[in-house]
Amino acid sequence: MGKLLIVGTVAFDAIETPFGQTDKVLGGAATYIGLAASNYNVESAIVSVVGEDFPQEYLDLFTQRNIDTSALEIVPGGKTFFWKGKYHNDLNVRDTLATELNVLADFKPVVPENFKDADIVMLGNLHPQIQLDVIAQMTEKPKLIVLDTMNFWMEHTWDLLKEVIAKIDVLTINDEEARQLTGEYSLVKAAAKIQEMGPEYVVIKKGEHGALLFKEKNVFFAPALPLEEVFDPTGAGDTFAGGFSGYLAQSGNIGFENLKNAIIHGSNLASFCVERFSTERMEGVERDEIAQRLHQFKELTQFDIEL
Amino acid sequence: MGKLLIVGTVAFDAIETPFGQTDKVLGGAATYIGLAASNYNVESAIVSVVGEDFPQEYLDLFTQRNIDTSALEIVPGGKTFFWKGKYHNDLNVRDTLATELNVLADFKPVVPENFKDADIVMLGNLHPQIQLDVIAQMTEKPKLIVLDTMNFWMEHTWDLLKEVIAKIDVLTINDEEARQLTGEYSLVKAAAKIQEMGPEYVVIKKGEHGALLFKEKNVFFAPALPLEEVFDPTGAGDTFAGGFSGYLAQSGNIGFENLKNAIIHGSNLASFCVERFSTERMEGVERDEIAQRLHQFKELTQFDIEL
Repeated sequence: MGKLLIVGTVAFDAIETPFGQTDKVLGGAATYIGLAASNYNVESAIVSVVGEDFPQEYLDLFTQRNIDTSALEIVPGGKTFFWKGKYHNDLNVRDTLATELNVLADFKPVVPENFKDADIVMLGNLHPQIQLDVIAQMTEKPKLIVLDTMNFWMEHTWDLLKEVIAKIDVLTINDEEARQLTGEYSLVKAAAKIQEMGPEYVVIKKGEHGALLFKEKNVFFAPALPLEEVFDPTGAGDTFAGGFSGYLAQSGNIGFENLKNAIIHGSNLASFCVERFSTERMEGVERDEIAQRLHQFKELTQFDIEL
Repeated sequence: MGKLLIVGTVAFDAIETPFGQTDKVLGGAATYIGLAASNYNVESAIVSVVGEDFPQEYLDLFTQRNIDTSALEIVPGGKTFFWKGKYHNDLNVRDTLATELNVLADFKPVVPENFKDADIVMLGNLHPQIQLDVIAQMTEKPKLIVLDTMNFWMEHTWDLLKEVIAKIDVLTINDEEARQLTGEYSLVKAAAKIQEMGPEYVVIKKGEHGALLFKEKNVFFAPALPLEEVFDPTGAGDTFAGGFSGYLAQSGNIGFENLKNAIIHGSNLASFCVERFSTERMEGVERDEIAQRLHQFKELTQFDIEL
């Protein structure tokens, strides 16, 4: 059983899609990562911050899923980070209607003693200074540091972000952001440029069009599972990251062939996440459903051409 | 060695991409289909029409590739179909600058006697009346009739197109057109609706995002090969159709498992097509390059998760 350290937001989301809307519900990168990773045989902890308004039932949810919350700081009198967004009919497009940093504005992460030797560190989308602070606290070099980020940090904290990217092993980023980061339209060229910045592996996420894994001249592709209904894409990328890092923490093997498996596991879990609002589906997903859908991924992609 | 009957345009194209432009060069759906299929062990013929302006060297090209041109009508004094298009920086978007039907306007297809029992009929994008006329001339029921079409025919000749769709076995169509045809955003639902219209198989082409194959509840996905450079996407969909139908004509097996292989073969050849203007790359592609790239497709998609 490997140790997985998860860093990222724990948040309230309010979501509007063409199919309905929610009031404040459970959200945040670390939340989705943690829930996804809890489907694997791992010891995990979340480093994050919430306000006093954060319900006990959500904390209990983490504990029930065997996620260590001792480093999930609760700020007395503080308000939890809040994000409000609206998806278009084309669910690939969304507008952010509100972002309230609240307690996140002054957050100083503290890695728990017993996770300073974590095997895998999963840095969810967050201010790069927080990501740097976490890396600096690790007493043993992790097998793999995975970083997820987005265009906001490229535009506002580029120097810091570059510093983080130089220290990590896997960057996960979406296709448009990979293009923006490198000035290359071709994702093959973009991935090569990103590898020059530090990470050995680059994962380019293309939403409903799947994800690409690059290492030097090696490329692997995991499709998204074609679904009858996509209800709410919120958290799909984080769930992908959680499946990816959770599987790797469980297996302990960080070779290219096993990273292929990891992005299939990530895509597999993401296919559940989008079927309901918020974390609803991820809270209820069963082990046999996960195995059944991995089987669908095999059917979807495996062929038998003799060469 | 199976028999493959190819119906579609043989044309002049003038193409502008961000990387350069061409004067009138060889183009047309049947041209790309024929060249792609000639990489397989098939007996093939093109049913189409050109004008007197069509160069002998292009006719010789077909003959050298063992493509029967006895049903490629040459209209004395006529002018060959001409298409002019311009691609944006995002090569998925193109504007049609000119379409001159010329000899295509009055074309009446005649299927050669020795191809009226073809194993596979590949109906490239063309007026649905021509496609119907070809089907009516077959004296033996083909193993498989494959139809490629586009939004223009949906908008202008819907009743005729519906008639063709009811008579075929495989529809290949792009994602936007599948949505337009069915009113369903989900490609899974769109494919199910199209199957109700007649075809046993539906192939949804997503350009650089790959292609999906549907039969009842079965789904298979072939990615496009991630390339460093895409130079000119013209003919990629037709080359895909040519690889698909050529491989099936060679193998003779039209079961779902073998159709998986066929869409990999189609995607494989399409990856060459886009590397140069017009048919340049497809004219020069070698057997060992094709095999080598099929190997890349395996590396790109095959994984080893025990279930």
